[in-house]
Amino acid sequence: MRIYLAGPEVFLADGGRAVGAAKREICAGYGLTGVLPVEESAAPFASGGDPGDPQWSRIYRGNEALIRGCDALIANLTPFRGPSADPGTVFELGCMRGLGRPVLGYANTGDRFGGRTLAALGAGARRRPDGSWEDAEGMGVEEFGLHDNLMLEGAIRASGGVFVARAVAADRRWSDLSAFVHCVAAAAALLGEDARQPAAESKA
Amino acid sequence: MRIYLAGPEVFLADGGRAVGAAKREICAGYGLTGVLPVEESAAPFASGGDPGDPQWSRIYRGNEALIRGCDALIANLTPFRGPSADPGTVFELGCMRGLGRPVLGYANTGDRFGGRTLAALGAGARRRPDGSWEDAEGMGVEEFGLHDNLMLEGAIRASGGVFVARAVAADRRWSDLSAFVHCVAAAAALLGEDARQPAAESKA
Repeated sequence: MRIYLAGPEVFLADGGRAVGAAKREICAGYGLTGVLPVEESAAPFASGGDPGDPQWSRIYRGNEALIRGCDALIANLTPFRGPSADPGTVFELGCMRGLGRPVLGYANTGDRFGGRTLAALGAGARRRPDGSWEDAEGMGVEEFGLHDNLMLEGAIRASGGVFVARAVAADRRWSDLSAFVHCVAAAAALLGEDARQPAAESKA
Repeated sequence: MRIYLAGPEVFLADGGRAVGAAKREICAGYGLTGVLPVEESAAPFASGGDPGDPQWSRIYRGNEALIRGCDALIANLTPFRGPSADPGTVFELGCMRGLGRPVLGYANTGDRFGGRTLAALGAGARRRPDGSWEDAEGMGVEEFGLHDNLMLEGAIRASGGVFVARAVAADRRWSDLSAFVHCVAAAAALLGEDARQPAAESKA
């Protein structure tokens, strides 16, 4: 079974190769094939094809093709430049959920979404009459005690997956894989069940 | 044809009802039915069902069911509390793309993603040897001249949709619908074509 490994590690200087290799090794230990976002230089869409198709579009199409070829997805939803996860990763989570296949996620932080959002807003946060918080533009602060926007955790729950959050040292935010390991174990168990239930997608 | 209207307006104090009604009226002018994210109080999943299913999960399932029942999606991808769009909206965009149906997007800003990211990073940004930018954690700044992460605009392009960005006054960021109107017109044209091409999903 193939697992798409979504996450912002592609933005690391090495394109995520080192942590990607470590993730693939963990997957292999559970009998799973970890699939990394496409390397542009090695992408089937990177050369040839429509010469009018820009590089970013070829990267997109390469990633989407990989997602469509996988049986499940594990997303690194560690907060990225704000209270929420990397938007490219969130998109991929949604895409796999739309395909009806299991999605799982992890975050290397011990803080919840509501608290992170308030911390980011700082003095810009204010109370509404009902006691909830909103920002300076009047947009409410979501507070369900979750790890991120409810659509992310809702999809993971609906697909039978898990969201694992662990506080890690700041300098290991993009390399610590202890929460990831937990996700891989859960994915292996889930796909093992799915393999015995051909109609598993009807769970959606 | 039904269009799911994704966007963070659900966080406005009125739950997005006023701007949602205006959006639905615009859709109706093009012969389309605008579908708004579920109001929890009116959600089919909000009451009854599994009593162990928490409120946030019921909201998620209500939204997902609405998305699955629509023919296309228009996402408000105006930057939300950071350089990128609201993660719930981005998830929904991905979900509809996974379903193989057209996705379109708009943003009420004239600034591009790379510039917004550098502005948010401020003094934390630094140059890599190749001249590109990275943040203080060593994560690169994506710069393709796009409106947001390439996965978002890649999906829109791949589905035949459009991304419309317009600079608007700050106090109209969450109410101006001039870019939205452009998307509705494009969606109407696209769905008109799709209606004549029953195998349109194979374009994915």
